[in-house]
Amino acid sequence: MNTIEVDLGTRSYPIHIGANLLGDPQLVEPHIHGTQVMIVTNETVAPLYLEKAKEAFRKFQVKSVILPDGEQHKNLETWNTIFDALLKERFDRKCTLVALGGGVVGDITGYAAASYQRGVNFIQIPTTLLAQVDSSVGGKTGVNHPLGKNMIGAFHQPSCVVADTTTLTTLDDRQLSAGLAEVIKYGLIRDPKFFQWLEQHMGQLVARDGDALAYAIQRSCENKAEVVAADELEAGQRALLNSGHTFGHAIEAGMGYGAWLHGEAIAAGMVMAADLSMHLGWINEDDLERLRNLIKAANLPDLGPPELQSSRYMELMAVDKKAEAGKIHLVLQKRIGEAVVTDQFSQEKLRETLDQCRRKV
Amino acid sequence: MNTIEVDLGTRSYPIHIGANLLGDPQLVEPHIHGTQVMIVTNETVAPLYLEKAKEAFRKFQVKSVILPDGEQHKNLETWNTIFDALLKERFDRKCTLVALGGGVVGDITGYAAASYQRGVNFIQIPTTLLAQVDSSVGGKTGVNHPLGKNMIGAFHQPSCVVADTTTLTTLDDRQLSAGLAEVIKYGLIRDPKFFQWLEQHMGQLVARDGDALAYAIQRSCENKAEVVAADELEAGQRALLNSGHTFGHAIEAGMGYGAWLHGEAIAAGMVMAADLSMHLGWINEDDLERLRNLIKAANLPDLGPPELQSSRYMELMAVDKKAEAGKIHLVLQKRIGEAVVTDQFSQEKLRETLDQCRRKV
Repeated sequence: MNTIEVDLGTRSYPIHIGANLLGDPQLVEPHIHGTQVMIVTNETVAPLYLEKAKEAFRKFQVKSVILPDGEQHKNLETWNTIFDALLKERFDRKCTLVALGGGVVGDITGYAAASYQRGVNFIQIPTTLLAQVDSSVGGKTGVNHPLGKNMIGAFHQPSCVVADTTTLTTLDDRQLSAGLAEVIKYGLIRDPKFFQWLEQHMGQLVARDGDALAYAIQRSCENKAEVVAADELEAGQRALLNSGHTFGHAIEAGMGYGAWLHGEAIAAGMVMAADLSMHLGWINEDDLERLRNLIKAANLPDLGPPELQSSRYMELMAVDKKAEAGKIHLVLQKRIGEAVVTDQFSQEKLRETLDQCRRKV
Repeated sequence: MNTIEVDLGTRSYPIHIGANLLGDPQLVEPHIHGTQVMIVTNETVAPLYLEKAKEAFRKFQVKSVILPDGEQHKNLETWNTIFDALLKERFDRKCTLVALGGGVVGDITGYAAASYQRGVNFIQIPTTLLAQVDSSVGGKTGVNHPLGKNMIGAFHQPSCVVADTTTLTTLDDRQLSAGLAEVIKYGLIRDPKFFQWLEQHMGQLVARDGDALAYAIQRSCENKAEVVAADELEAGQRALLNSGHTFGHAIEAGMGYGAWLHGEAIAAGMVMAADLSMHLGWINEDDLERLRNLIKAANLPDLGPPELQSSRYMELMAVDKKAEAGKIHLVLQKRIGEAVVTDQFSQEKLRETLDQCRRKV
């Protein structure tokens, strides 16, 4: 087991990464102060891991809520069912919420924990690669609004993250690839050596080699922990973690939440960002090709969906959280391993990129 | 004009109290950093003060949302209409929300500000006595759940509070009295000299004497600011501000939100707390009588509704935010001017108090 500390003063917490961690009371007990534990999971994860997870909380009064599976359920309605359960069971302000599942479960549960009685304790047990390398760490929680992704939410840090790599064995190939998109992101925006390592080991990662996956998760969490510790509330460099996300969110919203997985959408989005960066003369064609090849090697799309026109992207991107007074801000690439947030690009160039990076039917 | 500072480090903010402050740009402009302002108000306040309030924000792009009036609308559905408006207008992360109205508008708007894009700036312009002396100060925001009051929310401090005493001239008598309940509370729990002052000046307050009201608001805000500065997240003494609230919330939920005003419910609740304190031998009958008389002089109920049985109170009180593992914690009186949070009372004594403090039909 490897443990990485996210350094946030009094809100610091450990990320435990390793095989067979699920169900281990020693990892979670130090982080629970009351007597009541509510495990929130979904209909896909529950039959696989809910009973096992409960073993870790055997000293407490444990209840569970099972949400429907999928990004299309990441909304206020699903979120509210957690409060129904908490209030019916008379859970108090010292209770602990546990998110057992992927990014959607983690985001909804974290936001419920941020909001129940104005904030209760919570623990993340991510069971997808995407959640283990990204969404379970850093305290961003929230739900979608029909007019924009993650528009309603809070910063609320977990008290502990348990990333059990064994759970990745039951992940389907598409979900595994979606997680690799966020892994690639860390290399792309701030870790050129890791990018290189990924180019050399993508075959092993796709083949689910345990050691390769464990290293990729660890290096991803280290990168994320550094960024979050330096800029918890995204006043500055944390925004770089949104590489590909403004494009990606437009794809997710434009295609209907759940049609494209988040990781798939940001994979295409990172290529779009790199393509625009090249048009601006910041990176060269070789770098763009390296990114395209890595994304394709991870079985991810390097082009947006044929259905989505550039005009629709522009509409959707204008409501992105990084937009200011309607002006779109993007994470673009200075080179592989270095990104910046900028609004220094013409609408014309952006439109060109959107047209070019679209899969032709 | 009087200005009181709420001392919360980097989140400190001023409370401006005085006549004719509404519409003054100088008070609010220093607290706005973006370009977009959304004023949230309700159907009662809008025709009276919306246009005037807009004058203060004339340098910005100002939009407004008008909510229905009443505690029964303090729910997730009403709250969500604020996001609809913000997203339709493409409001960004640097926007400012302004709560123009009473406690319900302030709580819903504050919670929308806490949640929109994971937190945006907000300003309180309270137009009821209750909001000016209590709910606009201290950062408690939230909405009700059918199973409990204020169960979903956040701590989110405003960047500025503007309490224009002129707005109290349009307040109906019942709302004025409801505000006086919270004023009495400060005297009861921590300020015996102020309690005495209230005994001497309640006639003037009920008659809306401007100087008396201004002093009562100022002293209330000073008390609240001291408590909040010492304990922002209610880990300790801030809980004392909930005097009468556990009983009061049970009345509000039990009678249906909106039937009893919040201030009316906590007035009866403070008498119940004092009655139980007397049964425990903590205060004497004279003190209880002083409180009863003061509450009656403010035209507030000193007894709970006849419809509500003690068994229903017990059910409703068990889900109060101060409950722990189903055990009810109450704010009780050591003497007039000194309160404690305690669970050291028998269920039997509590039931006795609930039976005795009920208006007979």
